[in-house]
Amino acid sequence: MRYLAAIVLVCGWSALSAQTPGLVNTLMPEPAHVTAARGTLPLTNAFSVQVARFDSPRLEGAIRRALRRLSMQAGLTLAPAPAATPATLTITVAGAGEAVQSIGEDESYDLEVTPQGATLTSRTVVGAMRGLTTLTQLIQTGGDGYFLPAVHIEDAPRFRWRGLMIDSGRHFEPVAVILRTLDGMAAVKLNVFHWHLTEDQGFRIESKVFPKLTGMGSNGQFYTQAQAREVVAYARARGIRVVPEFDMPAHSTSWLVGYPELGSAPGPFAISPAFGVRDGTLDPTRDSTYQFIDKFIGEMAAIFPDPYMHIGGDESNGKEWRANPRIAAFMRAHHFATTAELQTYFNQRLAPILAKHGKKMVGWDEVLNPALPKNVVVESWRGVKSLAQGAALGYQGILAAPYYLDHMETAGTMYLADPIPAGTSMPPAEQKLVLGGEVCMWGELVDAGTIDSRMWPRSAAIAERFWSPASVTDVNDMYRRLTVESTRLEALGLTHRTHEAAALRQLAGSSDIGALQVFASVLAPLNLGQRQRQQHATPFTPFDRLGDAVRPDPAARRELDAAIQAFIAAPTAAGAAALKARFQQWTAAVPEVERQMDASPLLALARPRAEQLPALAQAGEQAADFIQQGTDAPAGWQQQQLDLISAAEKPQTLVRFTFLPELRKLVQAVPAH
Amino acid sequence: MRYLAAIVLVCGWSALSAQTPGLVNTLMPEPAHVTAARGTLPLTNAFSVQVARFDSPRLEGAIRRALRRLSMQAGLTLAPAPAATPATLTITVAGAGEAVQSIGEDESYDLEVTPQGATLTSRTVVGAMRGLTTLTQLIQTGGDGYFLPAVHIEDAPRFRWRGLMIDSGRHFEPVAVILRTLDGMAAVKLNVFHWHLTEDQGFRIESKVFPKLTGMGSNGQFYTQAQAREVVAYARARGIRVVPEFDMPAHSTSWLVGYPELGSAPGPFAISPAFGVRDGTLDPTRDSTYQFIDKFIGEMAAIFPDPYMHIGGDESNGKEWRANPRIAAFMRAHHFATTAELQTYFNQRLAPILAKHGKKMVGWDEVLNPALPKNVVVESWRGVKSLAQGAALGYQGILAAPYYLDHMETAGTMYLADPIPAGTSMPPAEQKLVLGGEVCMWGELVDAGTIDSRMWPRSAAIAERFWSPASVTDVNDMYRRLTVESTRLEALGLTHRTHEAAALRQLAGSSDIGALQVFASVLAPLNLGQRQRQQHATPFTPFDRLGDAVRPDPAARRELDAAIQAFIAAPTAAGAAALKARFQQWTAAVPEVERQMDASPLLALARPRAEQLPALAQAGEQAADFIQQGTDAPAGWQQQQLDLISAAEKPQTLVRFTFLPELRKLVQAVPAH
Repeated sequence: MRYLAAIVLVCGWSALSAQTPGLVNTLMPEPAHVTAARGTLPLTNAFSVQVARFDSPRLEGAIRRALRRLSMQAGLTLAPAPAATPATLTITVAGAGEAVQSIGEDESYDLEVTPQGATLTSRTVVGAMRGLTTLTQLIQTGGDGYFLPAVHIEDAPRFRWRGLMIDSGRHFEPVAVILRTLDGMAAVKLNVFHWHLTEDQGFRIESKVFPKLTGMGSNGQFYTQAQAREVVAYARARGIRVVPEFDMPAHSTSWLVGYPELGSAPGPFAISPAFGVRDGTLDPTRDSTYQFIDKFIGEMAAIFPDPYMHIGGDESNGKEWRANPRIAAFMRAHHFATTAELQTYFNQRLAPILAKHGKKMVGWDEVLNPALPKNVVVESWRGVKSLAQGAALGYQGILAAPYYLDHMETAGTMYLADPIPAGTSMPPAEQKLVLGGEVCMWGELVDAGTIDSRMWPRSAAIAERFWSPASVTDVNDMYRRLTVESTRLEALGLTHRTHEAAALRQLAGSSDIGALQVFASVLAPLNLGQRQRQQHATPFTPFDRLGDAVRPDPAARRELDAAIQAFIAAPTAAGAAALKARFQQWTAAVPEVERQMDASPLLALARPRAEQLPALAQAGEQAADFIQQGTDAPAGWQQQQLDLISAAEKPQTLVRFTFLPELRKLVQAVPAH
Repeated sequence: MRYLAAIVLVCGWSALSAQTPGLVNTLMPEPAHVTAARGTLPLTNAFSVQVARFDSPRLEGAIRRALRRLSMQAGLTLAPAPAATPATLTITVAGAGEAVQSIGEDESYDLEVTPQGATLTSRTVVGAMRGLTTLTQLIQTGGDGYFLPAVHIEDAPRFRWRGLMIDSGRHFEPVAVILRTLDGMAAVKLNVFHWHLTEDQGFRIESKVFPKLTGMGSNGQFYTQAQAREVVAYARARGIRVVPEFDMPAHSTSWLVGYPELGSAPGPFAISPAFGVRDGTLDPTRDSTYQFIDKFIGEMAAIFPDPYMHIGGDESNGKEWRANPRIAAFMRAHHFATTAELQTYFNQRLAPILAKHGKKMVGWDEVLNPALPKNVVVESWRGVKSLAQGAALGYQGILAAPYYLDHMETAGTMYLADPIPAGTSMPPAEQKLVLGGEVCMWGELVDAGTIDSRMWPRSAAIAERFWSPASVTDVNDMYRRLTVESTRLEALGLTHRTHEAAALRQLAGSSDIGALQVFASVLAPLNLGQRQRQQHATPFTPFDRLGDAVRPDPAARRELDAAIQAFIAAPTAAGAAALKARFQQWTAAVPEVERQMDASPLLALARPRAEQLPALAQAGEQAADFIQQGTDAPAGWQQQQLDLISAAEKPQTLVRFTFLPELRKLVQAVPAH
């Protein structure tokens, strides 16, 4: 296959500058080895691609997408056409790679850009995809044209399993959300889409064998098998595996609505109207349960070709088991002292069913038990310690705990959490059992409107943790590149950046949101626990509050942090003025925000924060003055401000201020008596 | 079916105010009859719905969506539950309506809101859907809670065929775009999605009978049959018909790539790399062509149940027919003097094939010929005159001409174009043949990123033209309601409002776009003809220019127009100051815009506009001063400014200034010597 730009007159810029700027590294994730060289490869409409050794529709699709991104970023008209020789980019791929991508798929690639042309070499199509993604991240401009800097990149991932989980159970997410998520994942080289498809709140995948699963257990919101196949194909086209999760034996109320005979209690059952650990649990003592599961897994195995299948296995509270005399008798007969042992029995019976359908089992921490086959993979929502325990027992593991997006940690915090922390005491052989990690987007508090803003760009920072060498840990540099990556992700149609303004317009009922945007810039959402204590959201709660509009880890916090640190280190008049201008901007926004709150009851729910802001801003202004002038604050001033800050830390109104730790530093830096 | 909100504690606002504000009409389209009454119906978590007579999954889905919108707008937690008696909203539907919705479907409804409750009555489920849409547009707030104002609405559409066409042929649009378009259509009561599926640039619908149609004619970008069925189901769930278009005998190059034997020239054929009228045309002289079409139409008829099928029929240039000796001989043998007669022969053979598969024919103007059966519907891209000619011959017609979105007319202009203009000379019997109209989104210059911003909110204004009484023609009131509707449409996930900021971030490579937004607010895209003369876009041209970012008919133009008119009428000092502040804001933005242009070659393509702006702003400032001070301008000043304005009117850089007519008025209002 050959591509070449058609010759089209474009209202144009002039030839490239004679200057040849070097590589400005905005790559994310950071490749294993980058060697910058001299010179640049100009990007023009004559850009052409030639595939040298192995070609396939999948590779062609990846090339088409990469050319589209080049085209959009550099304003190039690139039409398929017979290629010039030599082509601008020559791709040499040894072969297709695996028919069904496994954890062993070779994703390495070698990319060399010189002023004469670029070459991309890989063993597999997936490797070529990764290299093409890197290539599109290299685009730079010198102001009068676009180019690729000369560079040599040798790259391969650190971890084999780099996942992102979406919980479509608690809130259904339309196919469009899933597809654009896959685009985002491919852009940052994530390779496993873990699809949590069943929950107490909904059964989200069509079964033709058991139609009442969605017919009665989904509220009409589920994926058809055709849609699921489309997702699998879309993912495969991007080098992403799809691992479906069917959570058993607990988190399974939705199974029981249509098939109460599967349950451990008499029923009838209804879709759970609340989140959290529910009682509804499959009956592990009946053969009919396993016959049902066998048929269901068989049906799903035909849709999801991945060698792994996730069976959940978490948070089975054993309540219904203990309450059911028949099940209690079964436990006694089998000498099971705890319901955990009964769950292991369940898993032991599940394992051969999965094996029969060609699947290896993945489960959350609770499945971990030496009685299970050694090919079970444990996904740890409890943390690295739990992961290490599994490895010590010989089980492969995936780390999830530090990457729960609804904990609302900053990108920086999650970035520094490593599946194999520096200085780990795990023996090297056990370290090899750590397959990687997964970003987890649980579904309690997200819908199609908000989910992108919770996933991105933070997931890109975690993706770098999974791909790049362990030594890549510079948080500031990560944020520098993340800012660029966020713009690239937006070009894929992800709504993480546009969401806030759109949501503020809904809240204000107006497109005049300038003041609200200033207010929103100092706010962030509460985490799951804090929010549930404030609001107790259910599957029917609309996500239309200010806490749903504002973004996790907003840039304003980091900017303020940097400004305050610099000012404390060198308290210049200019530094004080800049800080004060920032605080004054906050205060100036408040009257208009309060006016809009008067007209919008929904927005007015956050009124307490608007009322707190001016005093906090004033604390900052005064602190800046005291520090810059070297004056002692009046007696009691400092404590008063710190009390103000402490009071403002209290979670309320579904939003929190992001700047309080930084403001505290500033107040504490004021000369004391 | 009954719905009731679960009782959930929400951090809340107090009970409704004792004041009972009346109806603030933001309905769009304007109903046929609205009678405001006294009082309000508060919206609380106890809001419940009861369906009194006829129920169906389709009605339940519509209710679920309406409750979702109520819930999101008013912050309500509405969970399905056994209903209180009486319910807040009682829906009485006489029956399902048609199994396959036709142009005869009854869409009328009666909606009454009183302080005690609301009742919605309709003959069909589609009528109930229209009423539910109106209900959600009634939501208001008095500042301390949300309510529906007491009102009685009796409503039915003026026209039966209220369409929106998307051309997926010239540029493929992902399914996600189609689905959200259907959501937008339902929100403004459009009822026909006309899907232009084949073009010279691509064959976009999978045929299993003729796999080379997409296999060789689509560049891999097409809808699977499963996806097409999903679109049809999604549309039906919203009371929208799907009329597919397979353009024949011209605009058909993509058919010929895989099946050259269908062509009128020897081939081989390639997907057309250029837009416009192409030569590739089906061979109307061979029986094998009709056998192919018969099989293909039969396959499509099973996917698209609508009684109508659009066969295009436009812009057949006859070139290949004249050039082919065999076809020329056929014409002589049949005494066809023109290729138009041969096309009529083609259509005459097509008609029974469509009839055999249960379809009536729709075609563009060119199919119009008395030799065709009288059940053919003519869609007029040529205008009302052409429509009237068809009616005079007894053909039903649909008006498309004034609603071409790529002509970049304002919402106001398109709004005033009526399929049956006031004072028409058409006899009443012929007026009845005018079925309605269609918004047309042609595909030359849109992709998935830009298409929403071209369709919305302008399509909502046209939708009102098709639905509301002919007497509803107040443009200012339309714009007032359109602004509100635009926010409601954004809540559906449409990107018409977020697109500009997202695109500016791509252009600037930065999230710091304040100055760019000011610049963009005075710009609009060129229309198709102007743009093609500037750029000559092809299917491979990226839509990544400033002209793709800025929106058609931006609000800033209307605001300025109103401000200038008011100022000329009463030239106060405050008015002058306000105008000058606006002009100064433009000028102030330019240096930052130019700095960003220095760093972005793509953005810099619009540099001439940035260079023109300050002088234009200065003209406005000076004019405001002269007028307010009552001073004559210096000799030559006025002509100089008018020359400046004329020069700035020249289409270039893919963007035009929107404010030049208004600025001209201001300059001309300066006292002359």
